[in-house]
Amino acid sequence: MGDMTRVALDAFGGDRGLDVTVEAGASISREDAGVGVLLVGDAPAIHERLTSLSYDPAMLEVVHAPRGIPMDAEPRSSLERWPDCSILTAARLVRDGDADALVSAGHTGATVLASADVFSMLPGVPRAALAAVYPTEMKHGPRQDPFALMLDVGATVSATAEELVGFAVMGAAYASIISEIEAPRVALLSNGREANKGTAAIVAAHQALSATDLNFIGNVEGVDIPRGTFDVVVCDGFLGNVVLKMLEGVGEVMRDLAKDASHQKVKWRVGLSMLEGRLRDLGRLTDWKVYGGAPLLGFDQVVIKAHGRSEVRALRNAVKVAAKAKRGDLVEKIRRGLAEGEGRE
Amino acid sequence: MGDMTRVALDAFGGDRGLDVTVEAGASISREDAGVGVLLVGDAPAIHERLTSLSYDPAMLEVVHAPRGIPMDAEPRSSLERWPDCSILTAARLVRDGDADALVSAGHTGATVLASADVFSMLPGVPRAALAAVYPTEMKHGPRQDPFALMLDVGATVSATAEELVGFAVMGAAYASIISEIEAPRVALLSNGREANKGTAAIVAAHQALSATDLNFIGNVEGVDIPRGTFDVVVCDGFLGNVVLKMLEGVGEVMRDLAKDASHQKVKWRVGLSMLEGRLRDLGRLTDWKVYGGAPLLGFDQVVIKAHGRSEVRALRNAVKVAAKAKRGDLVEKIRRGLAEGEGRE
Repeated sequence: MGDMTRVALDAFGGDRGLDVTVEAGASISREDAGVGVLLVGDAPAIHERLTSLSYDPAMLEVVHAPRGIPMDAEPRSSLERWPDCSILTAARLVRDGDADALVSAGHTGATVLASADVFSMLPGVPRAALAAVYPTEMKHGPRQDPFALMLDVGATVSATAEELVGFAVMGAAYASIISEIEAPRVALLSNGREANKGTAAIVAAHQALSATDLNFIGNVEGVDIPRGTFDVVVCDGFLGNVVLKMLEGVGEVMRDLAKDASHQKVKWRVGLSMLEGRLRDLGRLTDWKVYGGAPLLGFDQVVIKAHGRSEVRALRNAVKVAAKAKRGDLVEKIRRGLAEGEGRE
Repeated sequence: MGDMTRVALDAFGGDRGLDVTVEAGASISREDAGVGVLLVGDAPAIHERLTSLSYDPAMLEVVHAPRGIPMDAEPRSSLERWPDCSILTAARLVRDGDADALVSAGHTGATVLASADVFSMLPGVPRAALAAVYPTEMKHGPRQDPFALMLDVGATVSATAEELVGFAVMGAAYASIISEIEAPRVALLSNGREANKGTAAIVAAHQALSATDLNFIGNVEGVDIPRGTFDVVVCDGFLGNVVLKMLEGVGEVMRDLAKDASHQKVKWRVGLSMLEGRLRDLGRLTDWKVYGGAPLLGFDQVVIKAHGRSEVRALRNAVKVAAKAKRGDLVEKIRRGLAEGEGRE
């Protein structure tokens, strides 16, 4: 595995574990995308699973780790008890240069804590953040990506003004690489557009962001979230969690209603089949899970957390996003963005 | 206007002012619902508008107030400058017993401040709250109401644990009257279902609510908001604002997408017309504006704030909801709920 970008994939991670991760790894190895995968997990089980799959052995490597962290485990004590678990093993491969980026669909808390244990925080990062890509009505950047980035969505609960500014810098760096936007529009989520709206932390962050080199477009409101009038939206982890789960809930309700309709009348069924593509669009708009990868930002390595319910496609996307972030020099971009902030103060 | 329930309606209030309010008043007067309306605003203009409308003069009264508070005015200084404005005049009618409840589609801040100036806070209310009725997938109570109650949605920004508990008591009292639910299910909005999830205020409120007589079902998450797995959901005003505006935004995006679809292809148009009713349901699910009335809770009088964009139907609903809250003895129910909490401590 010479010149390719090598992604360490926690093979135990995710609700369906090896079933999905090994297939995703095999699939990527065949893609000729210059992305090598290190499947980190129970080697005999992985090899057995691989016998029924087609893969390119030059682009796929198996690294043994005898156990994963269960999705419902208490992460801190589990990591202490099992230093040979797959997420810690995968992180160490990245730290030691044997892999270029880390991807896991496993326990979110364990992924965050393992990253904190094994990697270093970048200088000037007040706090690591988990960012989520979610679908919006408006398109973004030259690639016309139909999604925006929101952070933090769960690495924190509350956040200080300084931490919100850090999130903005990191989110802008990520969006500039992934969506190829030169100066991503960064917004603060608040309860009104005016600079004086929101909590004390938000008001102070608004003022601080106005003085940065970021393309800060000011406060946005809840109504702007599904529309996506920005490329990056910043909030504390509590709010980000509620907002992201609400989008998920709206998607589920819409699918329920559509299903109801299709059971009700032949007329509905005819209408539904005609509108199928459009309803799929409506559904996709809120189905953030298909986008798979949420970057964990603030460390000196690229870490992508995929949703626990990821299927093969979502995991494959997460691995490719990790490789793209690495090639785009995400860590260096964040480091530079934060250093510029420091220099100004 | 003898035995009926009399509602003072701020006739200047709302984006379309007298046009909508006078028509709503005239319409209610004809309904034989036992609801009398006092239209409070510029009397000559109201009388002129009434000449072209059919109404029952026994159920409609005009009270002169020469001016309203503009929607974009600074509310505190406007109220001080114009003590004869319609919202203050209407509130005084209620305080003095000439009307039983107050309804305004005008400036939210002015409605809250006028209520605080003219009415008294109930003993034991830590803070007034604005509650919003919004549509949910699940039905509620014996009437199978397709909506739930959320508070606070904007009278506060942050809230202490004690304030959140007060919101829960007031919201439960309101839901028990409006949706005729004996013991409304009350939930706290948090970033996880476990009792230890959320900010310090939420964790403390969870503990305090578990010790009340309320039907407290614990924490709910963003995913539960559109579903409506509760009758009343409690949060601080900042979060409530973001959540409510997000629901509005999702509805707008869905309508945009449906419109797009109908322009695209004849096939879409056929499908759309067949699915019309269902799409209307989908839209209604997020179009909280049709429900018009948001109660302002915590004062010794019934106050309903209608959305500024209310049309006649929404305003009429708001007036009827105000009368129902008065007849159900909302204020006494809240007083009793709060006193029970006091007794326990």
